[in-house]
Parts: sequence; C-alpha cells; structure tokens
Amino acid sequence: MSRWEPNARGRLEQAALELYRERGFDDTTVAEIAARAGLTERTFFRHFADKREVLFSGAGALQDLLVSKVDDAPESLSPIEAIVAALVEAADGMFEERRPFARGRQAVIAANRELEERELVKFAALSAALAGALRRRGVTGPAASLAADAGIAVFRVAFDRWTEDTGEDTLAYFIRASLGDLQAVATQRGSAPVTGRR
Amino acid sequence: MSRWEPNARGRLEQAALELYRERGFDDTTVAEIAARAGLTERTFFRHFADKREVLFSGAGALQDLLVSKVDDAPESLSPIEAIVAALVEAADGMFEERRPFARGRQAVIAANRELEERELVKFAALSAALAGALRRRGVTGPAASLAADAGIAVFRVAFDRWTEDTGEDTLAYFIRASLGDLQAVATQRGSAPVTGRR
Repeated sequence: MSRWEPNARGRLEQAALELYRERGFDDTTVAEIAARAGLTERTFFRHFADKREVLFSGAGALQDLLVSKVDDAPESLSPIEAIVAALVEAADGMFEERRPFARGRQAVIAANRELEERELVKFAALSAALAGALRRRGVTGPAASLAADAGIAVFRVAFDRWTEDTGEDTLAYFIRASLGDLQAVATQRGSAPVTGRR
Repeated sequence: MSRWEPNARGRLEQAALELYRERGFDDTTVAEIAARAGLTERTFFRHFADKREVLFSGAGALQDLLVSKVDDAPESLSPIEAIVAALVEAADGMFEERRPFARGRQAVIAANRELEERELVKFAALSAALAGALRRRGVTGPAASLAADAGIAVFRVAFDRWTEDTGEDTLAYFIRASLGDLQAVATQRGSAPVTGRR
C-alpha cells in the first residue's frame, strides 16, 4: 500500500496534528491534511476513515493488547498488578517511541470538547473491558470494577505527566510512580503529606 | 409555581422514567410525559429544559454540594477522607430518599448510549471540580487528580451496588464499603483474595 508513498501514515498523522493545532480540529479538512503531507485525499482514506480517526485509530489495538495481557498474566499477580503490568507493556510497546505524537494529540484533545468526550468514552470502554478480563480471572464483586477504574486513573495521570515532562523518564516509570501515588492517596489517613512518596 | 399542581416535578419525573423504560428514551416525547403525569407541556417546561434534564437536573447541585463540603472539610482530613466525607453527605442529603428514582434512572441510562456518554461527561466534570477543590486545600501534584478519580470510582461502584441491592443498607454504607474495597485492591500484592475485606 505504501510502496509509492514512504511512511504515508506517519506523514498524514504529523500533518493532521500540525493543522489541528494551528487552526483547530473542527476547521481542518481532510483535503488540507493530505495537501500538507504531500499526498492525496485518496491516500488519506486508505489509512483513516475520517479526520477523527487520526487521533483514535490506536484505541482498538490498545484495548486488545491490555485485555490479552491481563488474560495471560500469571495467576500470582493481584488484579491491580495484572493491570499495571499490562499498562507497562503497552507503554513500552505502543507509546514510548511516539512521545511527540502523544504530546500533540493531548493538546488537540484538550482544546476540543467533542474530542474530550470521545476520549472519555474510549477510557470507559477500556475500563469495562479490563474489568471483564479480571472477572475471567475469577475476581468477584466490586473488586474488578475498582481495580480497572484505578488502573485507568493511574494510566491517565501517568500519561499526562509523561507528555508534560521534558526529561528522560519513560511512560512506564510514570505508571509505576502513579500507582505508588494512588496507593498512598487511597490509604492516607489524617493530614500527613502525600507527595514525594515513591 | 406548584400551587395548582401538587408535586408536579415528582409526577413528571416518575412519568418520564416510566415512559423511558417502557418505550426507550429516544422514542418518548415531552407531550407524552406531561400527559402521563396529568399535566401540561407548559408545566413540564417550567421544571425541565428538555427530556434529558429530567435525568441530569441534579448534576449541578451535586457538584456544588461536594465541592463546598471538600472546601469546608477539616484540615485534619486527608484528600480521600475529605472526598468520601463529602460523598457520604451527598448520599444522605440528596440520594437516600430517592432510591426508586435512582434505580429507574440507572436502568434508563444503561439502555442508551448517548445518555451513558452524558453520564461519563458529568462524572469527569465532577472529578475535575473535586481535584480543583483539593488543590485549593494545598494538595499538590498528581495526588489531587488521583484522589478525585478514586473518589468518583468509589461513588459509582457504591451507587451501582446500592441501586441493585434489595436490602436496607444505605448508599453511605456502600460508599464506605467500596472505599475499603478500593484500598484493598490498590495495595493488594500477590494472589491473596480481596473479597470480603471490610
């Protein structure tokens, strides 16, 4: 497909992000994205169903990866450990090489209410899928939902920290740090300070 | 306003829930809701902007209550304690007397994707508002977001348990129980069982 158009998908993604940031998501057309990338609209539609999919095409693969990792996690892992292990694998395998894209994407989504809602729906579906995977592991009652919701909260906070950070720390590092923060926050009593732990 | 229409608001709510459950939210009209309640459309629009607001009119009051309770919470409370105390107050003051409505509302929302998305947006806004209140208390870094997200996860799980339960336990009871479950889940290592704790 891409023999005559080296890295067409990457060029389209970069052109789309640039335009979404320059003039806003709503005011950008597919024709403009293709032109900026030096490609045709037809090529755009070979890679993406529409201009929103440039931002959300990874959602299905992310969910499939996380669910399969939780399904295959060693029985010795607790629910939250299984989820965090899956998130760390996704971080290393799907996100770490794409920090500039992730950063631009975060900015575009934060600037558009409809995209923010789409992102909420994506994460809610992810949480429900992870809770389902935990139930298949025999986790009963509210623990499955709570572990999945907690895992998603950890991931989202970690993702924000990673995209905002200018240092060398990996997304996997921020996921583990955020889990530590969540554990401290969830169990903290009285007014002892939380920050700095882990 | 309601001098000539005793409990018009309550009658409209009940009529709306019945119709949403019988024929679906999308296929119910305001005219039908008013007729079922024995009231006029004009009366409906004195109480609700549209048929969706019957299900979401409490969102603003809930957010205001929770934020003010977190703002006013004793300094000695940790972030999660301040949020849970606010949730318990809302449970007792806003929800406990309305379990039948809450139960019907949950069923209607679960059956309609657009309403589910609206519910997600509502809780995301609530979480952001609670994180803001925690930051005003001096909570720094990711702890504010994580405590707010954890509190919302606890509330949502507790709310489901309360509406599904046929016994006498209060929503406040389920909130405290779900916090205990979250604490167990977040800190659990290895394969020890989580259920039954607290």
